[in-house]
Amino acid sequence: MQTMEFSAEQIAGLINGRIIGDGKTVITGVSPIENGQQGHLSFVGQSRFSNHIDTTECAVLIVSENLLETRDYKPVIIAVEDAYISFQVLMNLYQEMQGRKTGIEEGSFFHDTAQVGEGVYIGAFTYVSEKAKIGDNTQIFPHVYIGKGVKIGKNCKIDSGARIYDYCIVGDNCVIHSNTVVGGDGFGFQPTADGFKKIPQLGNVIIEDDVEIGSNCSIDRATIGSTIIGKGTKIDNLIQIAHNVKIGQHNVIASQAGIAGSTIIGDWNQIGGQVGIVGHIKIGNQVKIQAQSGVNSSAKDGETLYGSPAINYSDYRRNYVHFRNFTDIVKRINDLENKKSE
Amino acid sequence: MQTMEFSAEQIAGLINGRIIGDGKTVITGVSPIENGQQGHLSFVGQSRFSNHIDTTECAVLIVSENLLETRDYKPVIIAVEDAYISFQVLMNLYQEMQGRKTGIEEGSFFHDTAQVGEGVYIGAFTYVSEKAKIGDNTQIFPHVYIGKGVKIGKNCKIDSGARIYDYCIVGDNCVIHSNTVVGGDGFGFQPTADGFKKIPQLGNVIIEDDVEIGSNCSIDRATIGSTIIGKGTKIDNLIQIAHNVKIGQHNVIASQAGIAGSTIIGDWNQIGGQVGIVGHIKIGNQVKIQAQSGVNSSAKDGETLYGSPAINYSDYRRNYVHFRNFTDIVKRINDLENKKSE
Amino acid sequence: MQTMEFSAEQIAGLINGRIIGDGKTVITGVSPIENGQQGHLSFVGQSRFSNHIDTTECAVLIVSENLLETRDYKPVIIAVEDAYISFQVLMNLYQEMQGRKTGIEEGSFFHDTAQVGEGVYIGAFTYVSEKAKIGDNTQIFPHVYIGKGVKIGKNCKIDSGARIYDYCIVGDNCVIHSNTVVGGDGFGFQPTADGFKKIPQLGNVIIEDDVEIGSNCSIDRATIGSTIIGKGTKIDNLIQIAHNVKIGQHNVIASQAGIAGSTIIGDWNQIGGQVGIVGHIKIGNQVKIQAQSGVNSSAKDGETLYGSPAINYSDYRRNYVHFRNFTDIVKRINDLENKKSE
Repeated sequence: MQTMEFSAEQIAGLINGRIIGDGKTVITGVSPIENGQQGHLSFVGQSRFSNHIDTTECAVLIVSENLLETRDYKPVIIAVEDAYISFQVLMNLYQEMQGRKTGIEEGSFFHDTAQVGEGVYIGAFTYVSEKAKIGDNTQIFPHVYIGKGVKIGKNCKIDSGARIYDYCIVGDNCVIHSNTVVGGDGFGFQPTADGFKKIPQLGNVIIEDDVEIGSNCSIDRATIGSTIIGKGTKIDNLIQIAHNVKIGQHNVIASQAGIAGSTIIGDWNQIGGQVGIVGHIKIGNQVKIQAQSGVNSSAKDGETLYGSPAINYSDYRRNYVHFRNFTDIVKRINDLENKKSE
Repeated sequence: MQTMEFSAEQIAGLINGRIIGDGKTVITGVSPIENGQQGHLSFVGQSRFSNHIDTTECAVLIVSENLLETRDYKPVIIAVEDAYISFQVLMNLYQEMQGRKTGIEEGSFFHDTAQVGEGVYIGAFTYVSEKAKIGDNTQIFPHVYIGKGVKIGKNCKIDSGARIYDYCIVGDNCVIHSNTVVGGDGFGFQPTADGFKKIPQLGNVIIEDDVEIGSNCSIDRATIGSTIIGKGTKIDNLIQIAHNVKIGQHNVIASQAGIAGSTIIGDWNQIGGQVGIVGHIKIGNQVKIQAQSGVNSSAKDGETLYGSPAINYSDYRRNYVHFRNFTDIVKRINDLENKKSE
Repeated sequence: MQTMEFSAEQIAGLINGRIIGDGKTVITGVSPIENGQQGHLSFVGQSRFSNHIDTTECAVLIVSENLLETRDYKPVIIAVEDAYISFQVLMNLYQEMQGRKTGIEEGSFFHDTAQVGEGVYIGAFTYVSEKAKIGDNTQIFPHVYIGKGVKIGKNCKIDSGARIYDYCIVGDNCVIHSNTVVGGDGFGFQPTADGFKKIPQLGNVIIEDDVEIGSNCSIDRATIGSTIIGKGTKIDNLIQIAHNVKIGQHNVIASQAGIAGSTIIGDWNQIGGQVGIVGHIKIGNQVKIQAQSGVNSSAKDGETLYGSPAINYSDYRRNYVHFRNFTDIVKRINDLENKKSE
């Protein structure tokens, strides 16, 4: 864990809190309340965690005012209106305090014709190809591959081992985690009697602003045109986005999901873990797809889907209850037949 | 997107087409016809896309002769017998024009005892271990790891971040995409009372000619002997091939599928996305396995499978229709029972 | 395949075996018995493989005494009590003979404040950040990223392209395969009207002793606190372990499984390939989860689960038999209804 050293007073100052106890008490880390560690900071924002206030090993707790009584507590208390929000504010401040890396580290490969903005970090062993452009304050960690003519916007973070292939475009404020591959060839082959002949994959990938993509994802380039990940969409780890897929804004896609070629996805959808979506269909807006579902036909706005192939969520659940009782159901049919033949 | 500059005349010359309009018109990119962009080239090969001919923003269209009338068109037309095929020919020519990289880039690690053929490219930060051999005209991009005694054939392309471990063999004309791991240890452990004891994984992986493997795949080495990917087989992204699996020729395996240890797969099979195949079984030839299926027993030539566990495709579909109506079916049984007891 | 050269005598000496035939015979590799190659060593430990003893191409076979007759054989035989165990002993000895790499290779990046123990190997292009500590006899192959303050124990092997992010801890005797990412950000976002706001992920990952993690896995850091992989647990390839998951000791998790956030898993469980486990549940000890199952509620010690959503294994199997016969079952209901209405 990261080491940090702050006094209760300092913390209270940042989140405008009221101290109960010794404001000089110093914390050296943060813990979840269920597993508080000595000398750490944690928070209690819901009454179901209130029992931890008196038993925690933590030195300092941020607690919502409405959960407090007028008495002394073992840990130092920082009373605030909403402990959860205050804790988030604090963690964001803390992360900002860590600062950004800047500068081009020795041992990176940087083509003469590549351009970088101000305040950029390029880690050792990162390879930046010809005519690539990297925007202000973007951090590119070690071992990244940036292909020809790639454009990356401002304030991005590209983690170690990510690969961004030729002519792909990344917007502002994007995060791409380790070992994710953006712009690999789409899986396109022409069957012939002698075998499969590769169809050239000449398009690119466009990642709009405020997108986050987890680790070990594969986002393939379009055959022609662009594979698109829309503004604000968040993609977890180990996810497959095939060629020519177009994903709209503010979608959340959980780990190990896969979306096949040319499918179009709207805005504000929630796609569960290990979901598969076939190619060439349309998913509307605000659709929820349960984990492990297999979607093989288009979905309208607001639908909730489940199963493989996926159907309406409630129907699947109800039918699955019958599936669980299938042996009993068959017995009932046996009984009916037996009575009939009597 | 890549920038390109060709006149309609140049393009017509390459594909033996007839120009309708101004042959000097220059295109600067290619677009899919549904989303044609100004100054771009596209194609219309099917009548259902004919309506785009008059409305497209594209500057130049390749169109099949049978879709054309004798009149003027807004875009410049290049008339050919089959627009789809001509477009593919063109895209292949274009890709060849891009050329190959050659030479050993400064900053790569190349063991004294490793050998390379002619016209090879080795990117910066690529590591080539002792006694590795790399065939003529093969391109190995930056950040690749090539283990001891690895043999790679001619005309291959190994993308940034691929790892090819000790003693693995790759044939001619293979493509291995970014961050794919060839020859990691198989998952073999001996259970003991104290825990699991690793079984040494001393075999290798053999990848035959004309194989393409997508990004972020894991192809494990055999415990002893070889894991084999047969000639012409195409493997998409994020796929697991376990130790001692043997895959025949000209198979197509879609994204996120997994094949467990020692399973043997024949030729010309189609394995859908997210399919799981258990270990120690045999899949014949020309078998089709629908996406998300779980195959837990051997399959004969020509079968089509679906479901988890997988059964005959048509049976699964028919039974799943009943599953969707399960609540109605149970009502019918209730009715029968009620009438009975009347 | 690795080349090796040992005489039958040398091998017999290592495993205390009795030679039948010419002890000077030299082997140059090992083969599985089903596919024995000329000049190779193999073994026969079960009577169902006895037929290979006379037909194999192998030069030398290790055979269990009870499978042998008193006669001559074509291959040289090394008779031992249990051929399987003797072969394992031999393969382990062989692997140890290969030795470990040591030394810090030129071309690695090593921060001034990082510390290494004795006998450590750091490959070229590996990046070791400030205040990282690496224990004795640990091997870190090329292209690895080690973040700030990371601690790695003794006798570990970290393969090419693995990424271990800031403040993560790895115990002794661990193996982390290529391109696995340990300590990437957990997938945590706060929904707002304008889009999803990132929740800082400030915890770490703790990997206890004797853990092996395959290639292309994603093990996310905790939001606060630690994601934990317990002692002796073995994780296959392409696996997702989300933030704040706690996995106990001696679990085996097969390829492409995924475990969602904050779930707690006990000891000695077997989790099949492509299994999904939802967040915030508890899995006990010695639970078996069949491949492709979707576990969405807590499981008690010793349960065996199957299906999506997962239910008791035997129930799922029995119900699935009815599912396979669903069309017949519906016909039976039709018949009952028809007879009724007659």
